[in-house]
Amino acid sequence: MIDFKCDYSEGAHPKLLEKLTQTNLEQTAGYGEDPYCLKAARLIKDKCKRQDIDVHFFVGGTQANLTVIAAALRPHQGAITANTGHINVHESGAIESTGHKVLALPSLDGKLTARQIQTAYDDHFNDDTHEHMVQPKLVYISNPTEIGSIYSKAELVAISETCRKNDLILYMDGARLGYALCAEDNDVDLPTLAQLCDVFYIGATKIGALFGEALVICSQKLKEDFRYIIKQKGGMLAKGRLLGLQFIALFEDDLYFDIARHANKLAMLIKQACIQKGYGFLTPSSTNQQFPIMPNQVLKKLKESYEYAFWQKIDDTHSAVRFCTSWATDVNTVQQLISDIESVG
Amino acid sequence: MIDFKCDYSEGAHPKLLEKLTQTNLEQTAGYGEDPYCLKAARLIKDKCKRQDIDVHFFVGGTQANLTVIAAALRPHQGAITANTGHINVHESGAIESTGHKVLALPSLDGKLTARQIQTAYDDHFNDDTHEHMVQPKLVYISNPTEIGSIYSKAELVAISETCRKNDLILYMDGARLGYALCAEDNDVDLPTLAQLCDVFYIGATKIGALFGEALVICSQKLKEDFRYIIKQKGGMLAKGRLLGLQFIALFEDDLYFDIARHANKLAMLIKQACIQKGYGFLTPSSTNQQFPIMPNQVLKKLKESYEYAFWQKIDDTHSAVRFCTSWATDVNTVQQLISDIESVG
Amino acid sequence: MIDFKCDYSEGAHPKLLEKLTQTNLEQTAGYGEDPYCLKAARLIKDKCKRQDIDVHFFVGGTQANLTVIAAALRPHQGAITANTGHINVHESGAIESTGHKVLALPSLDGKLTARQIQTAYDDHFNDDTHEHMVQPKLVYISNPTEIGSIYSKAELVAISETCRKNDLILYMDGARLGYALCAEDNDVDLPTLAQLCDVFYIGATKIGALFGEALVICSQKLKEDFRYIIKQKGGMLAKGRLLGLQFIALFEDDLYFDIARHANKLAMLIKQACIQKGYGFLTPSSTNQQFPIMPNQVLKKLKESYEYAFWQKIDDTHSAVRFCTSWATDVNTVQQLISDIESVG
Amino acid sequence: MIDFKCDYSEGAHPKLLEKLTQTNLEQTAGYGEDPYCLKAARLIKDKCKRQDIDVHFFVGGTQANLTVIAAALRPHQGAITANTGHINVHESGAIESTGHKVLALPSLDGKLTARQIQTAYDDHFNDDTHEHMVQPKLVYISNPTEIGSIYSKAELVAISETCRKNDLILYMDGARLGYALCAEDNDVDLPTLAQLCDVFYIGATKIGALFGEALVICSQKLKEDFRYIIKQKGGMLAKGRLLGLQFIALFEDDLYFDIARHANKLAMLIKQACIQKGYGFLTPSSTNQQFPIMPNQVLKKLKESYEYAFWQKIDDTHSAVRFCTSWATDVNTVQQLISDIESVG
Repeated sequence: MIDFKCDYSEGAHPKLLEKLTQTNLEQTAGYGEDPYCLKAARLIKDKCKRQDIDVHFFVGGTQANLTVIAAALRPHQGAITANTGHINVHESGAIESTGHKVLALPSLDGKLTARQIQTAYDDHFNDDTHEHMVQPKLVYISNPTEIGSIYSKAELVAISETCRKNDLILYMDGARLGYALCAEDNDVDLPTLAQLCDVFYIGATKIGALFGEALVICSQKLKEDFRYIIKQKGGMLAKGRLLGLQFIALFEDDLYFDIARHANKLAMLIKQACIQKGYGFLTPSSTNQQFPIMPNQVLKKLKESYEYAFWQKIDDTHSAVRFCTSWATDVNTVQQLISDIESVG
Repeated sequence: MIDFKCDYSEGAHPKLLEKLTQTNLEQTAGYGEDPYCLKAARLIKDKCKRQDIDVHFFVGGTQANLTVIAAALRPHQGAITANTGHINVHESGAIESTGHKVLALPSLDGKLTARQIQTAYDDHFNDDTHEHMVQPKLVYISNPTEIGSIYSKAELVAISETCRKNDLILYMDGARLGYALCAEDNDVDLPTLAQLCDVFYIGATKIGALFGEALVICSQKLKEDFRYIIKQKGGMLAKGRLLGLQFIALFEDDLYFDIARHANKLAMLIKQACIQKGYGFLTPSSTNQQFPIMPNQVLKKLKESYEYAFWQKIDDTHSAVRFCTSWATDVNTVQQLISDIESVG
Repeated sequence: MIDFKCDYSEGAHPKLLEKLTQTNLEQTAGYGEDPYCLKAARLIKDKCKRQDIDVHFFVGGTQANLTVIAAALRPHQGAITANTGHINVHESGAIESTGHKVLALPSLDGKLTARQIQTAYDDHFNDDTHEHMVQPKLVYISNPTEIGSIYSKAELVAISETCRKNDLILYMDGARLGYALCAEDNDVDLPTLAQLCDVFYIGATKIGALFGEALVICSQKLKEDFRYIIKQKGGMLAKGRLLGLQFIALFEDDLYFDIARHANKLAMLIKQACIQKGYGFLTPSSTNQQFPIMPNQVLKKLKESYEYAFWQKIDDTHSAVRFCTSWATDVNTVQQLISDIESVG
Repeated sequence: MIDFKCDYSEGAHPKLLEKLTQTNLEQTAGYGEDPYCLKAARLIKDKCKRQDIDVHFFVGGTQANLTVIAAALRPHQGAITANTGHINVHESGAIESTGHKVLALPSLDGKLTARQIQTAYDDHFNDDTHEHMVQPKLVYISNPTEIGSIYSKAELVAISETCRKNDLILYMDGARLGYALCAEDNDVDLPTLAQLCDVFYIGATKIGALFGEALVICSQKLKEDFRYIIKQKGGMLAKGRLLGLQFIALFEDDLYFDIARHANKLAMLIKQACIQKGYGFLTPSSTNQQFPIMPNQVLKKLKESYEYAFWQKIDDTHSAVRFCTSWATDVNTVQQLISDIESVG
């Protein structure tokens, strides 16, 4: 069985493991205050072309999301998200667990628009009874989204302007950020994100690391006392250098982007095969996750050799599924999958 | 200006005030452990024809809702509600503030159906990743709903059976329960509710009291340590007898139902006038709240003499509004409103 | 049986009930936005000699405490209190329920000192691992304290200066504030409190009202969006005018202070009787609560005619108990108690 | 500089790293549902000689503590702990952040006694106003304690019996459990813990792992839906096998205990040197952490060559400090430290 089910099926890219092994016997301070975390933070600041940002490392994305949102909001404030947003559907109520409502807006492509955000904001404040409702205060977007689509620079600029005009905090969940930044139709880079977002994270668990998300805080007022809240929510790793070391390996020679490009390239091959076969998609994706809509009997056949993720039922005879590629995906296995897609059905 | 805006614009029905005045100088224990609270609880048990229920008194509905839900759920569990449910829209995130997600299902008439609940339950547990999602555990329904509709006995029996089959807790918000129980098309009574619900409350703030909601806990396992949680959430009134006394006045001679019938009757007059004029309604209501859809220019005219609540925009020239009646509404003012509805527009 | 157990055994001072009755049929807006609440707020601003304060009304003290603290603190911050503080012992964990640790400091007389606060602050920030500990941010004091003692102006000035120097929020729980302000050895008044505190409340549940605490917010940054949080925590009374009306009755002719003086005067008679009999006290109190330490066999005798509150065991033959007076306490019953104290034992 | 400051200064024991490297390219399911986690759980069940326990893996101890306590308690319940307990002082309010009060009892040696627990329980339930106070429900103990002492079997049996008699949940924080189980004066083993505790964890972050704590749930009613809550609190590692693999390496050949014995043996050498020099200790410790009380000028001298942790000021000229050993501590560096302790001062 070959696994296209997700992009975290293997361990880490060998260069990261090597780094951990080489430094294993060194003694360093704990809790992210070691030289490696400092160096990794410097590398990320350089990549973002901003030295006044704060960088914190997390083991996972849910932990990052709940910590950021709990740190940013007052009790009566909530987080706007697309209804497909990870915080709305796949974190077991992590955000609500910290006391905040997730304000879900409808979305077909996984993205929010500046207009939607402005309308949600206006609807709230124009209502006479707004003190009886949750106040929208933070806008959560994922890039790429949970269904593979990416934001253009123009879309992000519009969202960022809307947020600033209305004093809303813009937070980007970048669990798979590398794949977005390396997509063929992408026009966004890290310095742009560091200008447009108040806070975002550069995910690595799904791009080559054993685990690790680098949170970048750009907004001055979100920085204060942030480490207390990481600790309180259980997110402060004792041997914090494990995070710093992996991010050094990923960013000192742009390995992070190499991995993302590799995975995207293979995903495009799968996409093409599906297109040629006439299959539609849940939404267009130029990143490492592809969501083709295929006949159930084709899927049944493919299941004999491949693992993929069932996503949703489309009709009685068709389903949307997810095929993922990663740093560890081999071009030969992709070729094999493609040839099976071509021949089956 | 005559106020049809809400059903809590005045103080209390005079009989309740009288009761408070008569007993004012007596010394009693605090925190709901006085003889009047005990007597009121007994009256309610008798009305419900169940002696094994627990009765607790609250000052307001939001307080009751958040206390019940916090007491009933474990951290990963959420409350299913219609998207129009009070806990979803008008409690400033009170439920999320206690850590729980509100799981809103679409509804046009303010009600949930047994099938919707079953589907939500099945969708959750059939999902491979259900441990990554909030577990539905409590079903919150309002009767009458926030837009005036009521549940039939058949509907409640179906919902209750679905809840029991799936070990879901059924909670009815009865902020205006009296109006439902006294509606002309109602076939439900208190003993039936005490059989079908795990917990519900009999609201009085909107039916004649200065304030007060009597929570009825029917399910054995929801009873344990409930008073601790009332206290913790700030809901334990020091001079608790004020609640007991008002409920005695409301229930010892069925004043509660007299008030509800009076208000419903006047609301039906308003409803008829709207129907005759050809106005539609947001949803059919046989209770004290009417939500006619009227031309904006008619509404503008009525606004010169009456207060009503704007509810929602229907189109560029029409809006849905709310007219409320209460114990304090006079038949003459209603006649005047009706004649104005007839003559305007 | 004559009740000296607490100061909330009766209903309201007759003038308050009268006010409620007179206005009962008027129609007003709900949720504290009526003319009576506005007028009561103006009266309190005048008494405080500050027009730039915000006044909000609560039904009870626990509700006020948890709302203020939840509104004021970020997740990692806690509230310093004397170990005897109400929030530490008698609110069923209401503060922790909103996510915040109560940082209790030892106190024999129920009071905190400026030095204790400074030391707690320094101990935190001087610790290398302070990010692993709860950050002290709010100082909670009660005046009078839970055991009847009061703060002098000099003590409050020192505490206030310490708080301002260290950017700590000073919050005074004034559940029985009137008794403190009218104590014979008091040198503090409302304008002083409005200068020294960031936020405090003027309690009335225990000084003549059916219920009611008037929260005064002096600090600009605590004012923002406060009503959202009142609503979220279940503390927004639908018929809010009931609070406004009672505070008008208490403050338009200084009835609040008359009541407090009356109760204090009677308490001093009880105190004198105990002193003459040679009984010690848990702590010196010049307010309406007296905590004499008496032989158990004397207490047993008194119990035949009077209710008092057991407070704590002192040794095998002595206990500290509480005698309370209130607006409703009659001088004759106090004389009777005194004569029994003199004759028993 | 040689680091005796803590036991998590290095990476992992080489055998663990090796295991991670060997399996790096394998594809497995995520979130702890892979074959390695299953195998590690089986190994731990075997070591505990109970097959009916549940085993869950965490990245860190604070995460484990807050998840267990949030999963176990209802809103009004709190956790009893020694005042030195990690949850009381060094988790930034993690427990309170989930809504629960930490009920700290005084302790000089870091331990609780069965009698203390019984008294705290009785004091609560004997109080007339117990519904106004936090209900004790879970007992948190650390073994070894935060200051190195360990529980005897007799002490644990007494505590366990007290808990069961009063329906209290017994939870042992085993961040350094191996060091306790391998101490020369220890008479407890894993099967005993699995009988006496309701839930405990076997810590590895401080005993040879990169990170990892194996939580063992013995009590049936704590097992339900536990994975939801791990996910909600951000504690579910995507590549969960990293935890399973490390615990396999630690338990398949008893490496865990070898490491603990090694560290303890070296710690005993340091202890002896201090005793011979006439230094006292904060509390007697037979585990890898030693807390000698030494003259400040001796400490100053040692600081030139060694890192240790300052613990607390004893008087103007003496301080208690912590020396830690671990799997990575070399006997030669310990000999060097000892000889310096002997020669200095």
